[in-house]
Amino acid sequence: MTSPLRIAIAGLGTVGTGVVRMIQTHGELIAQRAGRPVEIVAVSARSKDKARDVDLSAYAWEDDAAALAQRADVDLVVEVIGGTSGPARDAVEQSLANGKHVVTANKALLAEGGHALAKAAEAAGVALRFEAAVAGGIPIVKALTEGLAGNQITRVMGVMNGTCNYILTTMEHTGAAYADVLADAQKLGYAEADPSFDVGGIDAAQKLAILSSIAFGTEVDFDGVKVEGIERVSLMDIEQAAEMGYRVKLLGVARMNGAALEQRMQPCLVPATSPIGQLESVTNMVVVEGDFIGQTVYQGPGAGEGPTASAILGDIIDVARGLMIPAFGQPATNLVKAERAETGLGAAYYLRLTLEDAPGVLARVADALGRQGISINQMRQNAHEAGTAPVLIVTHPCGRIALDKALEEIAAHKTSLDQPVALRIEQV
Amino acid sequence: MTSPLRIAIAGLGTVGTGVVRMIQTHGELIAQRAGRPVEIVAVSARSKDKARDVDLSAYAWEDDAAALAQRADVDLVVEVIGGTSGPARDAVEQSLANGKHVVTANKALLAEGGHALAKAAEAAGVALRFEAAVAGGIPIVKALTEGLAGNQITRVMGVMNGTCNYILTTMEHTGAAYADVLADAQKLGYAEADPSFDVGGIDAAQKLAILSSIAFGTEVDFDGVKVEGIERVSLMDIEQAAEMGYRVKLLGVARMNGAALEQRMQPCLVPATSPIGQLESVTNMVVVEGDFIGQTVYQGPGAGEGPTASAILGDIIDVARGLMIPAFGQPATNLVKAERAETGLGAAYYLRLTLEDAPGVLARVADALGRQGISINQMRQNAHEAGTAPVLIVTHPCGRIALDKALEEIAAHKTSLDQPVALRIEQV
Repeated sequence: MTSPLRIAIAGLGTVGTGVVRMIQTHGELIAQRAGRPVEIVAVSARSKDKARDVDLSAYAWEDDAAALAQRADVDLVVEVIGGTSGPARDAVEQSLANGKHVVTANKALLAEGGHALAKAAEAAGVALRFEAAVAGGIPIVKALTEGLAGNQITRVMGVMNGTCNYILTTMEHTGAAYADVLADAQKLGYAEADPSFDVGGIDAAQKLAILSSIAFGTEVDFDGVKVEGIERVSLMDIEQAAEMGYRVKLLGVARMNGAALEQRMQPCLVPATSPIGQLESVTNMVVVEGDFIGQTVYQGPGAGEGPTASAILGDIIDVARGLMIPAFGQPATNLVKAERAETGLGAAYYLRLTLEDAPGVLARVADALGRQGISINQMRQNAHEAGTAPVLIVTHPCGRIALDKALEEIAAHKTSLDQPVALRIEQV
Repeated sequence: MTSPLRIAIAGLGTVGTGVVRMIQTHGELIAQRAGRPVEIVAVSARSKDKARDVDLSAYAWEDDAAALAQRADVDLVVEVIGGTSGPARDAVEQSLANGKHVVTANKALLAEGGHALAKAAEAAGVALRFEAAVAGGIPIVKALTEGLAGNQITRVMGVMNGTCNYILTTMEHTGAAYADVLADAQKLGYAEADPSFDVGGIDAAQKLAILSSIAFGTEVDFDGVKVEGIERVSLMDIEQAAEMGYRVKLLGVARMNGAALEQRMQPCLVPATSPIGQLESVTNMVVVEGDFIGQTVYQGPGAGEGPTASAILGDIIDVARGLMIPAFGQPATNLVKAERAETGLGAAYYLRLTLEDAPGVLARVADALGRQGISINQMRQNAHEAGTAPVLIVTHPCGRIALDKALEEIAAHKTSLDQPVALRIEQV
C-alpha cells in the first residue's frame, strides 16, 4: 500500500490553508507514519483570486466544491467550507456517493444529518471522519470511538466552546461585565460579529450531540439537547460562585437515564478544584467516564488553524493506513433512536432573583419554592441599589421540572423585576 | 469479517482477570463496536487452583503460557504476566513468531526489547499493541501514534507513576514525612513491599522511553533515560516549593535537542497552577506538545484492574477491527538510534544543602557555584536544629553539568553534612 492517498480540499479559509500548510511542511513525516504519501491533487474555494499565504499552484482548481467529488484522481475529500447546506453539503454527499472518503470539520452538518451521512458512507464502503468537528485538536473522537471502546460509557462532559470559556474566565479575572468582555473577545477574534451561535450554546451543543451518539450508540439528536447560553450570567453570579468554591462554565453533559438520553448544554457551577473548574481561557476540555476505565480527562486547543489542521491530518492518516471504522463507532443501522430524558437527575441550583425591595417579598419566594418541595440551603441578600434586591439562593437537590414551576410562579410576582437566573450545580 | 477474534490470556492476576471480566460483562457491546465477537478460548497462569472470582470453566487451560502461542485456535495473545524474561517473554516472542497478534501491558519488556519485538511483529505481519503499558487507562499511545500523527512532536511530559504522586501529594496535604507516607501507601496497596521500582523512577522511566520512541521516531532507549527517584525529597522541599508557587512531581520529559534525544525522569518543581501541578493522588497525566496542535493534556487512572483492562480491550478491539499500525507508529526499520543528549537545556534549580552551622560556610557555597558560572536567585536559611543549617537556594537558569560540578565540590566540603538535593524547576 505505497500508492499515494490523493486528497482534495473543499474550502480554503483558515482551516483549509492550515491543512495545505501541514501537508506541505510534514509531507515526509506523514508518509513515514501513514505508510504512504498523502498528496493534495485538487482544491476548491469561493474565490480563486483571494490572497492566501500558501502556494496552491501545484493543485488543480475547481470553482465548484462538488466537482471535487467527481474527479477520478481523488480518493478523499476534506470538507472545511462549513454550513449545513449549499456547497458543503453537496461536497460531502456527492463525495460519499461517488465512493470518496470524507474528512470534515463541519459540526453543524453532522449534528443535523450525521446519521444519514454515516449510512451513506457505509453503503459506499468509505470512511466518514470528523475529529476536527469536536473540541478542535483534542483527539477525543478517537479516544471515545477506539481507545475506550471496551467500556460502557456512563457520562460525557465537556467545555467545548472557547469563546464562552474565555468570556467567563475573563469576567472573573478582570471583574468586567459580560457585554464588555464579549466586545473585547470580538476585537481579539475570539468571538464572531454575531456571537449568538457561540454564547447561545449552539456550537457546543452540536459537539455534544456528536459525542453522545458515539458514547451511547444512539442516533445523533441535536434537537434533543437542552441548550441555554451564557448571556444572562452576570459578574455577580461568577463572584458568588467563587465564594462558594465554584466556577461558572458552559458545561455539556450527556448520559443515559435508563433508556432515555439526557443531553444538556448550559452554564453550570462546578467545583473550582475539579479539572473542569480549573480550565482557563479558550482551552477546551472533555471528560469521559466509563464503567471500567473510571474518569479520563482530555484538554487542548479547541479551535485555530494549527489544532484543527492537526485533527484533520489525524483522520487523513487513519484513512491512509487503511483504518475503516463506522463513523459513530458501530454500524449506523445499529444506532438506536433514544427517547429524550425530560429532565436530568436532581441537582442543587444556584438562583439569582431580582426582587422589589419590599416587605413580604422574600416570604413569597420561599413559599413558591416550598410548595414545589424545594428546600433552601443558603439564602443571601447582598447590598443593593435602592428599590431592588438581588437575592441569591442555593437550593437543596431538586428536580428541574419542579424548579421551573416555582420560578415561573416567582417570575409572575409583581415584585419580580427580572427573569430569575438558575444555574445548576454539577458535581464533576 | 464477522468471524470471532479468538484470544488467549497469559497471566490471571488482577489485570488478567479484569480482562476476562470485561469481556464477559460487555461481550455484546464489544461485538457491536468491533464488528465481530471477541472470544476467549484459552488462558494460562502459574497456578490453576488459585481462587479467582471469574468463571474460567469455558476456556482451555495451559500450564505453560508459551503453549498459548502454539494453539491453532488462537488469533491474539494477551500477555499480562509481567517481567522481562521467562514465561512473559516466551509467550510474547513465540506468539509473534507463530503469527499471533500480541497485546501486552508489559512496560519492562517493551522498554528493554520493544524495538526487536516490533520488528518481529512486522516480519510476521501481526499487531503488537501496548496501550496498557503506559499511563494505565489513558489512551495516550493511541493519541500519540494516531491522533497527533500529522505533527512534529516537540515535547512529551508525564507524571506516570501513581505511587510517587500519591506519596508527594500526601506529604504535602498531611505534613507527614516521606517514610511514613510510603509505609501507609504500602498498607493501602498503592506501593509494593519493595518500592524501589516505583519510588526510584524506573517504572515511570520505562513508560517515558516507550512514548519517546513513538513521538520522535527513535528506537526505544530506556538506558538513555536519566533517572532520579523521589527518595530524597523531603517535606521541607515540598513546603518550600509550595511557598514559591510550585509543587514537586516525579516528572518525565522527552524532547529532541537537535539530533540528540533528551529523556529525563526526575523530581521537579512545576508551577502549581499548571495542569501537571494540579494533579492529585495516584492519577496519571501526560502532556504532548506538537508543532501544529500546541499543547494537549491527558489525565486518568494510571493503574488498577478496570483501567488496565480498558486499555487492553481498546487494543483488542482495534485488532478485531483490522487496524494494523506498526507498534511505534512507523515501520521498526525506520526508527533511528538517536544519540543521547548529555544534558537538558538550562533550567533554574532548587537546591537544599545541609551545612554545618559555622562562619564562612555559606560563602564557600556561593563561591563554588559562582566559579561554575551559576548565579543565585534566592537563598534562604531557615530555623534549624543546633549545629546544622538547611540552606535553600534557587539558582538562575544554568546547565546541569556545571551544577553537578559545583555540587560535587560543595559535597566534598567538610562542612557539608549530607549530599545536596537539586530539583529542576520545569516550566510546563
